[in-house]
Amino acid sequence: MEKIILTGDRPTGRLHVGHYAGSLKRRVQLQNSGEFDKIYIMIADAQALTDNFDNPEKIRQNIIEVALDYLSCGIDPKKATIFVQSQIPELTELTFFYANLVTVSRLQRNPTVKNEIKMRNFEASIPVGFFTYPISQAADITAFKATTIPVGEDQLPMIEQAREIVRKFNSVYGEVLVEPEVILPENDACMRLPGIDGKQKMSKSLGNCIYLSDTEEDVRKKVMSMYTDPEHIQVSDPGHIEGNTVFTYLDAFCNQGHIDEYAKDYNSLDEMKAHYQRGGLGDVKIKKFLNNVLQEELSPIRARRSEYEKDIVGVYDILKEGSIVAREKAAQTMKEVKDMMKINYFEDEELIRKHCEKYASK
Amino acid sequence: MEKIILTGDRPTGRLHVGHYAGSLKRRVQLQNSGEFDKIYIMIADAQALTDNFDNPEKIRQNIIEVALDYLSCGIDPKKATIFVQSQIPELTELTFFYANLVTVSRLQRNPTVKNEIKMRNFEASIPVGFFTYPISQAADITAFKATTIPVGEDQLPMIEQAREIVRKFNSVYGEVLVEPEVILPENDACMRLPGIDGKQKMSKSLGNCIYLSDTEEDVRKKVMSMYTDPEHIQVSDPGHIEGNTVFTYLDAFCNQGHIDEYAKDYNSLDEMKAHYQRGGLGDVKIKKFLNNVLQEELSPIRARRSEYEKDIVGVYDILKEGSIVAREKAAQTMKEVKDMMKINYFEDEELIRKHCEKYASK
Repeated sequence: MEKIILTGDRPTGRLHVGHYAGSLKRRVQLQNSGEFDKIYIMIADAQALTDNFDNPEKIRQNIIEVALDYLSCGIDPKKATIFVQSQIPELTELTFFYANLVTVSRLQRNPTVKNEIKMRNFEASIPVGFFTYPISQAADITAFKATTIPVGEDQLPMIEQAREIVRKFNSVYGEVLVEPEVILPENDACMRLPGIDGKQKMSKSLGNCIYLSDTEEDVRKKVMSMYTDPEHIQVSDPGHIEGNTVFTYLDAFCNQGHIDEYAKDYNSLDEMKAHYQRGGLGDVKIKKFLNNVLQEELSPIRARRSEYEKDIVGVYDILKEGSIVAREKAAQTMKEVKDMMKINYFEDEELIRKHCEKYASK
Repeated sequence: MEKIILTGDRPTGRLHVGHYAGSLKRRVQLQNSGEFDKIYIMIADAQALTDNFDNPEKIRQNIIEVALDYLSCGIDPKKATIFVQSQIPELTELTFFYANLVTVSRLQRNPTVKNEIKMRNFEASIPVGFFTYPISQAADITAFKATTIPVGEDQLPMIEQAREIVRKFNSVYGEVLVEPEVILPENDACMRLPGIDGKQKMSKSLGNCIYLSDTEEDVRKKVMSMYTDPEHIQVSDPGHIEGNTVFTYLDAFCNQGHIDEYAKDYNSLDEMKAHYQRGGLGDVKIKKFLNNVLQEELSPIRARRSEYEKDIVGVYDILKEGSIVAREKAAQTMKEVKDMMKINYFEDEELIRKHCEKYASK
């Protein structure tokens, strides 16, 4: 069986280093690993509309941003199919039929949905499209017969829902859908990177994100203003590592090469942490170090971005071509699904012949 | 503005005289009235799957039956477009986007849905597809820009939901959808015709239906076995009209012509009723009269059915052609909807040009 990845993002804003550490970097590694036959990367505009239906302009303006971010990070359109969800109508058709296989109470029990509803303060006024998005995600995954979904632990209930739909469909109608497996991240620190103000989540409205598209100077300023340890007032004071944003970022990004290059006084990140904890290592030093680490990571991304920014029409073409390729695959699956459900009546010669016989013998 | 009708049935079985009195007869009148520019008649297989997902074979076998019933009643494929719902994928796409405009609690308040859930003993295990079918109905109606929906009073909440979706869509994205109006039946007796056993609903499982496809002899036997008035034992006993199935059917079907032809002793149905009420009119007589009335109504239907049964391939062709015509119309609406939602990014030269400019000026 082919190994196929499906992954993607909601185009509600430019992507930030949290997206990069938590998912994009891994995707590029998986893409370049040679272990996968196909990689589909979906810009999930239709899903983003489920809780932004009254602001389609926001989604519309951010598709190109997300595409630029993908390409800048090293997603290669020769190796991966980048596509726009709304351009694949088959996904809504699958969603429609899968909705018969899931009960309302099953959706209500989904912990990811519960949590998202809470985060958005929806309470009683949850849009149906948002409430049912686990079904839509199952459609996205199965349309491409994805075998492998790289996600964080918080998304496991979504994948479990997709697996349930696959099992139910295959048992009711016949084996045609593929049950996806999850790949969890290897490095926990990469998941849910906090904002530069130490708040749990990076968010555009809080202004606490480092974007992949930020300039070198923007990144430097943001790093230098980062939340560290409020009790670490004098350089000589002992400092805390837990909840110290600079060290959380270093856990996510710093490798031995960075230590050897930019922190020659230490043999490892642990040594640096120990120094900070016993006192005598100032915040400015650790921030400068983090800045070096981040700039090394981000500068090739920035360089690729500026190349792609010169050819916006070309980037739209990549999305358009990718959407054509993705649609072909989804249409093929949809045909198989309809054949299994036996709702292709007009192509079903056997059905028509039997009905002719039934009435001929009357 | 064009006057456009949308109507249809779930293909879960052959149609019976209840369908005919409550809806089909009226449809044929509307079709022949010349007052409507277009008439779309939908065989709602996808909707039928929402609570028959594990029995697609039932739906599949009954599409041709419903089509034969339509044609036999006088639906004319030259005047009306008969189509199969699942062959119009645009309907699922509209459903998907409309789902963002309706809240879960709004659906829960829909009295028709509440009632249907009760009838089907779904309780906690309501399939999502069934729960959300008012949204799907709104898609069916609006895809064809239907102005006029002939329904019974029990369906008013469904149409109100469709109207709400139209208003919300048009106010958020721009005026493109048409708010449908209802035509209620003129004759109350025609709605919810009881079974021949006097039970409130005709149902295949209760075996209490008179089908449009029943033979003359079947109809006669069923009429002669009809539930009347259990207290009307001797011919001379006074009889009750209320709850007497024979009179309920006569209210629905009997006209002055029938009285003049088959009940020459009376000047009107009211006179016959009065005789029955005061005593002296036997059940056999009123049943024979009803049989005459029904046979007069059903014999041309039966004759047309037997012609169409000789050409099953031709009937499938009518559905296939109708589905092509319906799909063209739905695709046109879908294009307008997507243009309004501005999710046709690749055709949007303005969007692409602006993004080029944005990055050129950086």
